[in-house]
Amino acid sequence: MLEELKKRVYEANMLLPKHGLVTFTWGNVSEIDRESGLFAIKPSGVDYDKLTPEDMVIMDLDGNKVEGSLNPSSDTPTHVELYKAFENIGGVVHTHSTYATSFAQAGRGIPCYGTTHADYFYGPVPCAPCLSKKEIEKDYEKNTGLLIVKEFKGRDYNAVPAVLCKNHGPFTWGKDAFEAVHNAVVLEEVARMALLTERINPNVLPAPEFLQDKHYNRKHGEDAYYGQN
Amino acid sequence: MLEELKKRVYEANMLLPKHGLVTFTWGNVSEIDRESGLFAIKPSGVDYDKLTPEDMVIMDLDGNKVEGSLNPSSDTPTHVELYKAFENIGGVVHTHSTYATSFAQAGRGIPCYGTTHADYFYGPVPCAPCLSKKEIEKDYEKNTGLLIVKEFKGRDYNAVPAVLCKNHGPFTWGKDAFEAVHNAVVLEEVARMALLTERINPNVLPAPEFLQDKHYNRKHGEDAYYGQN
Amino acid sequence: MLEELKKRVYEANMLLPKHGLVTFTWGNVSEIDRESGLFAIKPSGVDYDKLTPEDMVIMDLDGNKVEGSLNPSSDTPTHVELYKAFENIGGVVHTHSTYATSFAQAGRGIPCYGTTHADYFYGPVPCAPCLSKKEIEKDYEKNTGLLIVKEFKGRDYNAVPAVLCKNHGPFTWGKDAFEAVHNAVVLEEVARMALLTERINPNVLPAPEFLQDKHYNRKHGEDAYYGQN
Amino acid sequence: MLEELKKRVYEANMLLPKHGLVTFTWGNVSEIDRESGLFAIKPSGVDYDKLTPEDMVIMDLDGNKVEGSLNPSSDTPTHVELYKAFENIGGVVHTHSTYATSFAQAGRGIPCYGTTHADYFYGPVPCAPCLSKKEIEKDYEKNTGLLIVKEFKGRDYNAVPAVLCKNHGPFTWGKDAFEAVHNAVVLEEVARMALLTERINPNVLPAPEFLQDKHYNRKHGEDAYYGQN
Repeated sequence: MLEELKKRVYEANMLLPKHGLVTFTWGNVSEIDRESGLFAIKPSGVDYDKLTPEDMVIMDLDGNKVEGSLNPSSDTPTHVELYKAFENIGGVVHTHSTYATSFAQAGRGIPCYGTTHADYFYGPVPCAPCLSKKEIEKDYEKNTGLLIVKEFKGRDYNAVPAVLCKNHGPFTWGKDAFEAVHNAVVLEEVARMALLTERINPNVLPAPEFLQDKHYNRKHGEDAYYGQN
Repeated sequence: MLEELKKRVYEANMLLPKHGLVTFTWGNVSEIDRESGLFAIKPSGVDYDKLTPEDMVIMDLDGNKVEGSLNPSSDTPTHVELYKAFENIGGVVHTHSTYATSFAQAGRGIPCYGTTHADYFYGPVPCAPCLSKKEIEKDYEKNTGLLIVKEFKGRDYNAVPAVLCKNHGPFTWGKDAFEAVHNAVVLEEVARMALLTERINPNVLPAPEFLQDKHYNRKHGEDAYYGQN
Repeated sequence: MLEELKKRVYEANMLLPKHGLVTFTWGNVSEIDRESGLFAIKPSGVDYDKLTPEDMVIMDLDGNKVEGSLNPSSDTPTHVELYKAFENIGGVVHTHSTYATSFAQAGRGIPCYGTTHADYFYGPVPCAPCLSKKEIEKDYEKNTGLLIVKEFKGRDYNAVPAVLCKNHGPFTWGKDAFEAVHNAVVLEEVARMALLTERINPNVLPAPEFLQDKHYNRKHGEDAYYGQN
Repeated sequence: MLEELKKRVYEANMLLPKHGLVTFTWGNVSEIDRESGLFAIKPSGVDYDKLTPEDMVIMDLDGNKVEGSLNPSSDTPTHVELYKAFENIGGVVHTHSTYATSFAQAGRGIPCYGTTHADYFYGPVPCAPCLSKKEIEKDYEKNTGLLIVKEFKGRDYNAVPAVLCKNHGPFTWGKDAFEAVHNAVVLEEVARMALLTERINPNVLPAPEFLQDKHYNRKHGEDAYYGQN
């Protein structure tokens, strides 16, 4: 089972360079096996073209390494907090993708300007504020996870499977590693189009709520009719 | 005949990722056989790299599936309305291509700033307004088609084979599926250059009408002299 | 000799899609043999991936077709005027490359903001005004050539081997077809960086003249010391 | 030993086109062997696809050619000054990469807006002013090196391994040629995101210093815990 998990997480990680979301070793993907409570994650600072399925590191939800010869991604404590708080999710992705990171650096969430956004994210993608000096100096990566969880207090993390961390970059999640990567790709394209939309019309307003409702429910609601299911 | 139609529509759909107009399963192409009144269209939500000619779905102009095991694109009712109202056209394309969609999200048509635009679109590419709450909640995709048709009342849909739908994205058409895809590629490039043009000179005006006339007629008028015909 | 010329012009044309300067059939390259006064040019509206060396059309400087079964590029009369007026040049290129065309659509020349520009173009790349209604309606392409020639009255066409035509796009030239293509690639990159430079600093001024002098002469003057000659 | 050095410098130079940092022959990489005081550098104006390891030119720190049949890069005297003043470095890179060059043309350093920047550059990447007329007319490339060295007076060149030269472009360095190329790639991406960040929020401020401290030290300080060491 762990071999299969490592293979899946390896493959999901390799989709990041394929979709142009990462430079060098930036970015990481993990997937959890909810039964055992173990998750596999990319090792820290290893080139994508040297990565193998065996390099994936197995961790538990207390942050202990269970298997693997390499150090796990330095962002591992963030993944742990997300898996602990967001019970439905099975995969987490972090990247420094250009447009989503630029929104994060600008300290702004991504408004919903159209149906491309509404098909995946129900309402704006929020931007969590920067951590305090104290939160950064100690347990930085864990506190990043707690900050994201706090940002979603009262929000449905299933309906908005993405967040920006101010001055840092995006995290996305999904039912498994592949859906989380899928959402990371969409987030990047949605961020790019939001920036262009504001260039074309500086006074643009978000799409009407009834259009957002329609598109999200067309793909995700009980009466979804997009796709083959 | 239907096999040939399905093959053509498959090939035209595969041009969308080739030209960088789509992400994942976004976008769809159809082509109609005017004699039988049947058209072939991409199935809903299927990855381009798994698509085969056999997956194309055959529909009639009442929106009934005539052949195919998969669900047709959720945008099929929009295609139906365009084929019914625009009698000369043989192919329809919908994408979420980055720049054209950004203009749609901004709620602005694309002004004609030069000969690249004028060679294909006679005057600005219009942006149809957002549908009302009622029109979106029921028969959304059909109403999108009717909205486009209304937008072209009194306009020549042959001379401007493209439209933007506010908060959504572009539709293009042509004498067949391949010309419709061709126009979708041109629309995206024309949108990109229009955005850049306005960045370079915020006070820019559209190209003079006589230049627009000249270029459109050089390729499309009775005395056309571009190309080999 | 004409076979060799056709082969060279074919190869130079094929560099346009390789360098991302053209969409579909847009753009054309020619090269002249000054002894015979004949030049080879791309046929009109033929796809680059179907082009062969044999498709190149041989023209004389009166605009007569000397050899070839296809129609020459519709821009041929512009090439003729440039070859007649600019006696030193051996190759001409026209494209609709994105950034250079956007400057042309904006009606602005490209200021020299740095050494990348100064290495190739001595001073700003000028933008010729739009032709009049009368000049466009009759002999449009010939008048485009005459307009460019007029724009360079009193300027050194060897030192600034490029021009923008308002609402249209760029032309470049060089000692042969390959140098003209080289200059078209540089022009596009220089245009892109000029746009970005103005975004980063809206009050930016052109590079000091002594820096422009130094860089141009480093590559082109009598005491040139760039490269292997 | 020199053969090995030439091979390494050849390979590092070939990474520039691979990462999209250069057009034609623009850009150059060198690496020094500190024991012998000799360095290898790319020849001037040779196409990347014709380059071989044997083409690399061996120079000493007095600017004399020690080995090689080709002229060294015209920027060689700049490399010499950097090697002489920055004793820890082993490799130097110069490019005209689009976004970093645009910041240089705009005469602005690159502010640190987030962790992507802070992981590599401790504080803003400075922009050195343009040289004077006199400094440009004589020993231009040597004076460029001296200017960079002056710009880093009182700054830690190990902590900020990059500089922009006004109206010109970027130089980066590192412990060897490969790290210098790595920094050139990061600089380009960081410049691109800084530009976008300012588009998204024109009033954006640099990232808090404690975040910059944390990220730089996470990778570079004594208690670094990023990667496998």
